[in-house]
Amino acid sequence: MFLHSLRRQRLPLALWTPRRLIATKHGVPDPMTGELMASTPDIQPNRVEIIRNTNPATPPPSHTLVFGHTFTDHMLTIPWNAVSGWGTPEIKPYGPFQMEPSATVLHYAQTIFEGMKAYRDEHGKITLFRPDMNMKRMNNSARRIALPTFNGNALLDLIKQLIRIDQHWVPKEPGYSLYVRPTMIGTQKVIGVGPPSEALLFVILSPAGPYYASGFKPVALYGTTEFVRASPGGTGAYKLGVNYAPGVLPQKSAAALGYSQNLWLHGEDHQLTEVGTMNMFVVFGKEDGSTELVTPPLDGMILPGVTRDSVLTLAREHVNGTKRLPNLPENLVVSERTVTMKEVKEAAAAGRLVEMFGAGTAAVISPVDRIGYMGEDVHIPTGEDGMGPVSRPIWTELVGRQWGSIPSEWSVPITE
Amino acid sequence: MFLHSLRRQRLPLALWTPRRLIATKHGVPDPMTGELMASTPDIQPNRVEIIRNTNPATPPPSHTLVFGHTFTDHMLTIPWNAVSGWGTPEIKPYGPFQMEPSATVLHYAQTIFEGMKAYRDEHGKITLFRPDMNMKRMNNSARRIALPTFNGNALLDLIKQLIRIDQHWVPKEPGYSLYVRPTMIGTQKVIGVGPPSEALLFVILSPAGPYYASGFKPVALYGTTEFVRASPGGTGAYKLGVNYAPGVLPQKSAAALGYSQNLWLHGEDHQLTEVGTMNMFVVFGKEDGSTELVTPPLDGMILPGVTRDSVLTLAREHVNGTKRLPNLPENLVVSERTVTMKEVKEAAAAGRLVEMFGAGTAAVISPVDRIGYMGEDVHIPTGEDGMGPVSRPIWTELVGRQWGSIPSEWSVPITE
Repeated sequence: MFLHSLRRQRLPLALWTPRRLIATKHGVPDPMTGELMASTPDIQPNRVEIIRNTNPATPPPSHTLVFGHTFTDHMLTIPWNAVSGWGTPEIKPYGPFQMEPSATVLHYAQTIFEGMKAYRDEHGKITLFRPDMNMKRMNNSARRIALPTFNGNALLDLIKQLIRIDQHWVPKEPGYSLYVRPTMIGTQKVIGVGPPSEALLFVILSPAGPYYASGFKPVALYGTTEFVRASPGGTGAYKLGVNYAPGVLPQKSAAALGYSQNLWLHGEDHQLTEVGTMNMFVVFGKEDGSTELVTPPLDGMILPGVTRDSVLTLAREHVNGTKRLPNLPENLVVSERTVTMKEVKEAAAAGRLVEMFGAGTAAVISPVDRIGYMGEDVHIPTGEDGMGPVSRPIWTELVGRQWGSIPSEWSVPITE
Repeated sequence: MFLHSLRRQRLPLALWTPRRLIATKHGVPDPMTGELMASTPDIQPNRVEIIRNTNPATPPPSHTLVFGHTFTDHMLTIPWNAVSGWGTPEIKPYGPFQMEPSATVLHYAQTIFEGMKAYRDEHGKITLFRPDMNMKRMNNSARRIALPTFNGNALLDLIKQLIRIDQHWVPKEPGYSLYVRPTMIGTQKVIGVGPPSEALLFVILSPAGPYYASGFKPVALYGTTEFVRASPGGTGAYKLGVNYAPGVLPQKSAAALGYSQNLWLHGEDHQLTEVGTMNMFVVFGKEDGSTELVTPPLDGMILPGVTRDSVLTLAREHVNGTKRLPNLPENLVVSERTVTMKEVKEAAAAGRLVEMFGAGTAAVISPVDRIGYMGEDVHIPTGEDGMGPVSRPIWTELVGRQWGSIPSEWSVPITE
């Protein structure tokens, strides 16, 4: 019970005496479930070993950056095994791993990841945007795929140290950012299917340009019914590697037909779920004069995106008066509910379809102007610059908070 | 058209002149689809480079083997990239890869694999069992996940060379075998989701004991409805890594309830699909006195297993008189059709449930004696040694063909 409380309070494990550590070597039954709780050491930021890169690169000019191709001078690695728990964190020169051919991840796809961004504001201060959300989601992903969980604050502390060391890699130009990619993989050297007894958590950094170099370019979607991204009882609600590779072939098929991305449709009534690797919003004009912002509910198939949550929160704060957003319709209704292609088509035909957009960390907001569906195209209105009357005011507030021009608690400082 | 014919005929690419290679550098439109066909070099066994392990290990005593823990002295690697196609095959000492932290497989689970076995017969000759099935399936998997395809005969030629070099690792004891694990992973150094421009195909070998050391131990299954292994439009019919990691948590949950494996149930009518990582068969006694052997059809959710196909083929050859199997019921009906838990429960209650078993490369045949379903246990008859009246005669023929005591075309010789 005492150890259970300790764990719940996330006291640093360094406070434990060796005797307590020995006592818990084989785990302690959880008083609620009777399950053995892991009681091996958690991630310990104060044990980090820093090995400086003696051959650092020069960050390339920002305008030459292509997403995900360039990496900074250092990376963070933290090994884990089932016997001794999380080991010594290392911040060291970016470079290849030694990986056994039998490593679990190479055969059974035991991998989870996160994506978040560090921004440099006009005063040069570097911040992360809502990183607590990513730490929480990464732990949920780990549980779903039988990888070890960890103290999110401890990992975040180490990520901040890593970014501070490579802070000159955070681009200065507005709209640019440093993409942060935490990943955890199963590394056990056994080709049996099971919970891995060894894992590696690593974090790499990649400077990135704005998704749309000049203005917003609305995208055309292919309404996909031949392939699924997620299913009830599946893994769509978790950020697992397994949700991504199977989407590449459908994306190629969509591209061959002249569409940018898949609009993943679910069930016989063709419910709209996600767009490519983004969450999705539709805006309807209602007969009563109100405007409805709709996104599918977190029913087990939808990834709980940070941008999705941010859009919903900003819209709801506007509605409840916590913070009114300029130019956002007064009469806004925010809904997490199922929306079908029938409803979208009917709204388009009746002139009540206001706009549609994807939402994700990479593109932030991505307007949609067309859906290829069952052999015909459903056209969707877009504003002059590509964005619509609901997405534009929300995007303005959102990127203001991300880039630091609008102060908010979502911005977590890394440097002064 | 000429190149298209060449490709269809799988002529060795070494026959091509350099001029032809240059002409096809950017691909040739497929006359049927207009799609650009890959025309880069295929796998070329005659280019293999062999680097002998100068520090070979001593194979451990067979009785100490644990599945998937021990690997032989050598491995096969074949790199691929989108510009120059399949590169130089290498047979070299087993050991770790250098892998970039940004490699596609570590983030987006771009991995496919196969499992097959090499057996040593009583005269010492080593054979592979139906390896053409694995080569064909691996190419299907590659297409599904946007990895490169290859000439299956060329890869098989190299696998044979690898096994010949490590042939003293094929255990001599009956029931033991050498497990062969071909794997292909995306290795592109870019964290964008897309078809990888670089990949690595590798093959490792692991000596393995019989799944059941002494006789057959029937297993208890947990009828799983909270999680799915596969869904329509998903990847269940392909041997992709992504189908495996998500099954670990459900397996742990089943084990916590006292069951060995998941019985994956699909749809509102709880159709039986697969067992753990095996295909599945049920045997019913019919009112007309016949015996029906049933397995779910290859409808897109079921892995086309080599053992599944072998069981079906042997049963059908018995039925059509091509080869009668001793002790297998005369009046056998072989069905690939949907079977639901309702049907299984009713048959069990009526005394018409004859037996149930899993079928896969690792265990060959795995009898089932119990299904935990909706809070109660459905009991399934098993014979004295665990096997039933249909599985035993089929298993006897199957392992006879695998181990070489029954000559058949399914046995492909590797050594004389």
